[in-house]
Amino acid sequence: MHKVIFDTDPGIDDAMALLFLHRHPEIDLIGVTTVFGNAPIEITTRNALYLGEAWNIPAPVAQGAGHTFDPARGGSYWPTAIHGHNGIGDVPVPEAVSRTADPRPAYQFIIDTVRAHPGEVTLIAVGRMTNLALVLKHDPDVAALVKQVIIMGGAFDINGNVSPAAEANIHGDPEAADLVFTAPWRVVVVGLDVTMQTVMTSGFLAEMVAGGRADIKLLSDISQLYIDFYKSRVGDGMVVHDSCACVYLVRPDLFKTRSGPIRVVCGGIADGQTIQKPDGRGFPPGPWDGHPSQLITTDVQPDGVLSTIRAALVDGRAA
Amino acid sequence: MHKVIFDTDPGIDDAMALLFLHRHPEIDLIGVTTVFGNAPIEITTRNALYLGEAWNIPAPVAQGAGHTFDPARGGSYWPTAIHGHNGIGDVPVPEAVSRTADPRPAYQFIIDTVRAHPGEVTLIAVGRMTNLALVLKHDPDVAALVKQVIIMGGAFDINGNVSPAAEANIHGDPEAADLVFTAPWRVVVVGLDVTMQTVMTSGFLAEMVAGGRADIKLLSDISQLYIDFYKSRVGDGMVVHDSCACVYLVRPDLFKTRSGPIRVVCGGIADGQTIQKPDGRGFPPGPWDGHPSQLITTDVQPDGVLSTIRAALVDGRAA
Ligand SMILES: [Ca+2]
Ligand SMILES: [Ca+2]
Repeated sequence: MHKVIFDTDPGIDDAMALLFLHRHPEIDLIGVTTVFGNAPIEITTRNALYLGEAWNIPAPVAQGAGHTFDPARGGSYWPTAIHGHNGIGDVPVPEAVSRTADPRPAYQFIIDTVRAHPGEVTLIAVGRMTNLALVLKHDPDVAALVKQVIIMGGAFDINGNVSPAAEANIHGDPEAADLVFTAPWRVVVVGLDVTMQTVMTSGFLAEMVAGGRADIKLLSDISQLYIDFYKSRVGDGMVVHDSCACVYLVRPDLFKTRSGPIRVVCGGIADGQTIQKPDGRGFPPGPWDGHPSQLITTDVQPDGVLSTIRAALVDGRAA
Repeated sequence: MHKVIFDTDPGIDDAMALLFLHRHPEIDLIGVTTVFGNAPIEITTRNALYLGEAWNIPAPVAQGAGHTFDPARGGSYWPTAIHGHNGIGDVPVPEAVSRTADPRPAYQFIIDTVRAHPGEVTLIAVGRMTNLALVLKHDPDVAALVKQVIIMGGAFDINGNVSPAAEANIHGDPEAADLVFTAPWRVVVVGLDVTMQTVMTSGFLAEMVAGGRADIKLLSDISQLYIDFYKSRVGDGMVVHDSCACVYLVRPDLFKTRSGPIRVVCGGIADGQTIQKPDGRGFPPGPWDGHPSQLITTDVQPDGVLSTIRAALVDGRAA
């Protein structure tokens, strides 16, 4: 069993990833931490609590950062055209959610949980990297106790999605991401290079709904706005960004990877861009030197990812 | 006939490109301008004069910039391990070259020549973009009179070669390149995305030498150091960066292209990186807006490029 803390900003593709982590038989979801991103922190936290309740997910929810790691960065832009005004596709959410968040801030929840299970916990982070950067700031020794960190974010050999250079999760807090990528823990970055290839058609989703499960029906309702957004970009379907990072945990064999230190551009026209120095390539001395080698994913078998998602969601099976 | 001014920093792959432009029957090489880069400006100019003499190339040579467009940038590093201490593979060069350079600086030579043939001249620039930036600074109206600008430089969906982010020609003068890419002339950028795929094996070169031409023999002698450098990188052979840009002029059908404005990162860890905003992709307002759409090459048929080079060098034929 993989012990997982899911750091998320639900978010529509976040919702699918959350249900995947809950339903996959080899994953033990032991905590959910929230971060601002697809919506303000109060909304992403409310959504995590609401989905936890609706889907009977036992994992506690801890609220995380509401602004960037570097307070000098300005305010955020909320992608309401993609995720809706309420962050989950504008499906009606009950005013009152009976669950409440853990009293600790997300970074403290992560520190305590990792220290309780040293070497066992995987962090899957699919929003801004702010909470993980705060973990490193408040308790740097925790890095050595984390099993691995899997991130949805970045764009390496491909354009970004919020600028020609940068992907949204990293662009939303570049300083935090640079700290996370260069910390002494094992990081795997699942970026647009593979997620943009991984499109779930609306027919595929409808077929899962036809199985009759209420949780998938809710997921499908949430996803319709997102599918509309992606219609002009990828045709009929949704890019399942965040689920790709979760599938990597259980099916790394579906991905091609490349190793090397990763830095994030902070400032200028390429603000938030992720750049890896591939291991084995010689360059003059530079800002990548002395940082740990991390993995990025460069290619994927999309059909394998999609069938892994379906097996977990529909049947609670690993494959 | 294509009227061409070749802006170059010979340079070993520059030497092959120069011979290609001279020998191709559909190209009228009407001028050679030099720039610092593979070696200091005095050496690249001496090499252009020497090769012009050795190969009986009638085109005049005008000496260009010896330092970056922005004087605040520091000094340059000379890639002696790639191009040798004398810029052309350390083959012995006679002390005295009988030819002398045009008295005008390169930018003035370009301005005068373009104004003498409005709408007819293609600039092929395969070194730093400094001379072209100086043209734009001294006579911005000339941009509208140039037929097209073909550049060897940049790295778009691929790592750079002097840093994980940047390619040497652009990294060597980022401010100049940003000015050139955003000016109102038609630019085609042939970068590492295609040139790194275009490897001439030493066997291919030896076979050309076996044809008996003295000019190809000299080219081969010059190229040996360069082949040694690339041995650990691409196996047996040389990456014919600069010739790719020249072949684009006569065989654009061998290349795949993508259109969109191009900016160059100036400063920071990605200094000198080239980033295109592909046309048709929607992004929030940003630094690419309002700049002309230019072409980059994203893929190539290497065998077609190599046989085009051979046909010109060996037989003076177009194909
Ligand atoms: Ca997310
Ligand atoms: Ca050159």
